[in-house]
Amino acid sequence: MEAHGILEITTHLVLQLSIILFLAKLAAETCERYLKQPAVIGELVVGMVLGPYALGHMIRIPGFPEGLDILFPLPHGPGNPSGVDSLIPVSTELWVIAQVAAVILLFMAGLETDVSLFFRYGGPAFVIAMGGVIFPFILGDIATVFFGFAENYTDPVALFVGAIMTATSVGITARVLSDIGKISTPEGVTILAGAVIDDVIGILVLAIVVSVARAGQLSPGEIGWLGLRAFGFWLGLTAVGMLLAKRIARFLRWFKSGGAPLVLALSICFLVSAVTEMFGLAMIIGAFVAGLVLSNTDIAEHLEKSLRSVYHAFVPVFFVVMGMLVDFSAMSHVLLFGAVISLLATVSKVLGCGIPALAVGFNRVGALRIGIGMLPRGEVALIVAGVGLASGAIPLDIFGVSIMMTFVTTLMAPIFLVPVFRGGGEGKRVRLKTAGRATEPSASD
Amino acid sequence: MEAHGILEITTHLVLQLSIILFLAKLAAETCERYLKQPAVIGELVVGMVLGPYALGHMIRIPGFPEGLDILFPLPHGPGNPSGVDSLIPVSTELWVIAQVAAVILLFMAGLETDVSLFFRYGGPAFVIAMGGVIFPFILGDIATVFFGFAENYTDPVALFVGAIMTATSVGITARVLSDIGKISTPEGVTILAGAVIDDVIGILVLAIVVSVARAGQLSPGEIGWLGLRAFGFWLGLTAVGMLLAKRIARFLRWFKSGGAPLVLALSICFLVSAVTEMFGLAMIIGAFVAGLVLSNTDIAEHLEKSLRSVYHAFVPVFFVVMGMLVDFSAMSHVLLFGAVISLLATVSKVLGCGIPALAVGFNRVGALRIGIGMLPRGEVALIVAGVGLASGAIPLDIFGVSIMMTFVTTLMAPIFLVPVFRGGGEGKRVRLKTAGRATEPSASD
Repeated sequence: MEAHGILEITTHLVLQLSIILFLAKLAAETCERYLKQPAVIGELVVGMVLGPYALGHMIRIPGFPEGLDILFPLPHGPGNPSGVDSLIPVSTELWVIAQVAAVILLFMAGLETDVSLFFRYGGPAFVIAMGGVIFPFILGDIATVFFGFAENYTDPVALFVGAIMTATSVGITARVLSDIGKISTPEGVTILAGAVIDDVIGILVLAIVVSVARAGQLSPGEIGWLGLRAFGFWLGLTAVGMLLAKRIARFLRWFKSGGAPLVLALSICFLVSAVTEMFGLAMIIGAFVAGLVLSNTDIAEHLEKSLRSVYHAFVPVFFVVMGMLVDFSAMSHVLLFGAVISLLATVSKVLGCGIPALAVGFNRVGALRIGIGMLPRGEVALIVAGVGLASGAIPLDIFGVSIMMTFVTTLMAPIFLVPVFRGGGEGKRVRLKTAGRATEPSASD
Repeated sequence: MEAHGILEITTHLVLQLSIILFLAKLAAETCERYLKQPAVIGELVVGMVLGPYALGHMIRIPGFPEGLDILFPLPHGPGNPSGVDSLIPVSTELWVIAQVAAVILLFMAGLETDVSLFFRYGGPAFVIAMGGVIFPFILGDIATVFFGFAENYTDPVALFVGAIMTATSVGITARVLSDIGKISTPEGVTILAGAVIDDVIGILVLAIVVSVARAGQLSPGEIGWLGLRAFGFWLGLTAVGMLLAKRIARFLRWFKSGGAPLVLALSICFLVSAVTEMFGLAMIIGAFVAGLVLSNTDIAEHLEKSLRSVYHAFVPVFFVVMGMLVDFSAMSHVLLFGAVISLLATVSKVLGCGIPALAVGFNRVGALRIGIGMLPRGEVALIVAGVGLASGAIPLDIFGVSIMMTFVTTLMAPIFLVPVFRGGGEGKRVRLKTAGRATEPSASD
């Protein structure tokens, strides 16, 4: 009988995966082809509709023993299969697969990062990205305290909402800009470089927030110390990785057996992720660093190409599971807070990136373009929110608010980007453009 | 605290996966490059050495809470993490990933099946494959009863040992023959076609044995009925699949979003696998049929190519986990039985395929070549044994015997194939070769 348990758990999971993957792809295709929206929106909706809080707990599967005869059982309700008793309303098996998917997602994000973009446009982009991190973080933190979801500004809930607000998912913007042929405009390139920097800063903010959340209530001094420790770990990991990158690439290329470079790279990514988690940070931070380190080697392209299928097979599971965590009945008392957070997330990013953009030489049109381009939170905010939820730092309703904010900001960017890029002419003041061009010759001035 | 549980379970799993993938690839490379042995041998050895019964339960991981601070904890011992209390000595999370890997493995096997080979060389290959199934099955069944591991010939244990003995893994032979340029000889082609047929018959035998094992002790009449039911299900599934194959392929090709054909094909494979399991057969039977059905469509090549990376990333986990199930201390009283089974597996396959080969027109050298070529059990036997273990039909010691037999037969083929193919001249009697060629013109004789 006990052995039957494991067979039925496996079958139940395979059935769940089958339905998740099928509906995720249907939704992704509908979004991209007909609604001109990013696939992630469709995958989240599938999770919300299919999840335990919505249809999932009503769908019965014939032939399964009691406890496994519901497709997505409610947590704590009758028939929650093997789940650890926690905030997570899906089975442990499905959850770990979604988490491995998040690790693969961040590894790919690191691998695809164009570090050269950072060096070429680093200066202005850094200022813009910093504005787009600090401003939303502070507003999110304050709003959480104001609405009574946190006791003070160093409460982990407030810090997490702040951290979730800082994210930028440039994939959506890059896709829209590339569709309308504006990706190599000064604004386009600045957005891309800004998003690269935002990813790194976002990871650092997350590292600090996770450290603080795990330690509980702390004084500003202690937070500073933890932040320094997290930053030091990240810096050390990245530095060691960069030093070893060429050697690792050579090691991977030495292998001839089928798929070896990919599998070994994944193995390294998993190891770094686990070590990062064991240090007290989130796995995805390690995964991103592992990808970033390998992105600058001659094996990056091969890895990206062969990781692509694994990415496609796993990542929809992550987004659908994130959608499944939304408990609508628990959302009613946070709708106002969610609306305010969504509004603040929009305003703070547009101003937080736009004002520095003005300062580094863009005109108002250019600054608006950059602000809107940096708007979408996409998968990055979800990952941060998921870490907060899994570590117990934020409750399910605040997680729901993050999903709401992600929806609003992610839907807004494609809608507004096209008009602001099509009208309004040049986005950069000619004076500065010339000055920029003339920097070297005029260095003797 | 509860939420911590799930984070730590995830980290523990990611660490296990990292180490499994790394060592699996090291071992695979060593086997293929230096020992000229198939990778599966190396992956099994990694599992045996790294598993809970060997080094695994001695490796401590710092920083984990009690219960998760051992890399591969012993079952029932202190610190078995979240495992269902069963025969499986690894955590439920690792086990389900290994099982999904087995599904992907069989889906790929189905997808790669060259159905045209079956039609071209079907006649003689069918006779040879049947001999290579019936003879080992009967000998395995009898030997299990003789050694007292089963009470009678219809005992599930005896039936499972028989089923494990019938497998043929042609990958190893195909690789050796292709290395020495003998793959398109009459013997080479017959071995390949025979292995295709053997796969299908093997799946059927497994389907029947699983049905019987789940029903417990049965009369021969009941076994016949269950066998018919399993065969009917398989035939119905394959027939419906073949009828829909072109439509499914067209449906998959309609999707444009990233990775959609692969992900949808996986989704279909998972669904068919789960339904097959719900019908009372094993998931992998459904996975093989799903692959077989799609193998004959114009999307097969694309799917094979994009599935390759997923396959590489998953499948080593399956083989390493299989190796981990070997409990050496429980093996001592089955060593003699294991040796006899290994010997019988060798003799029964060489004679079981060789005698029919003589009958269809090969000479003794050719018959020996075919018999040795069909020898390796490889992954197929392991999958069957894994199904037996998970369904509770066979105990861990008999599982160990299967691993032993797989080792012996899989190691033997590459060692003996090269000498028998290099010496001895033509493997087919000229008379029959001519007769074969002259079949059509002489049809009027």
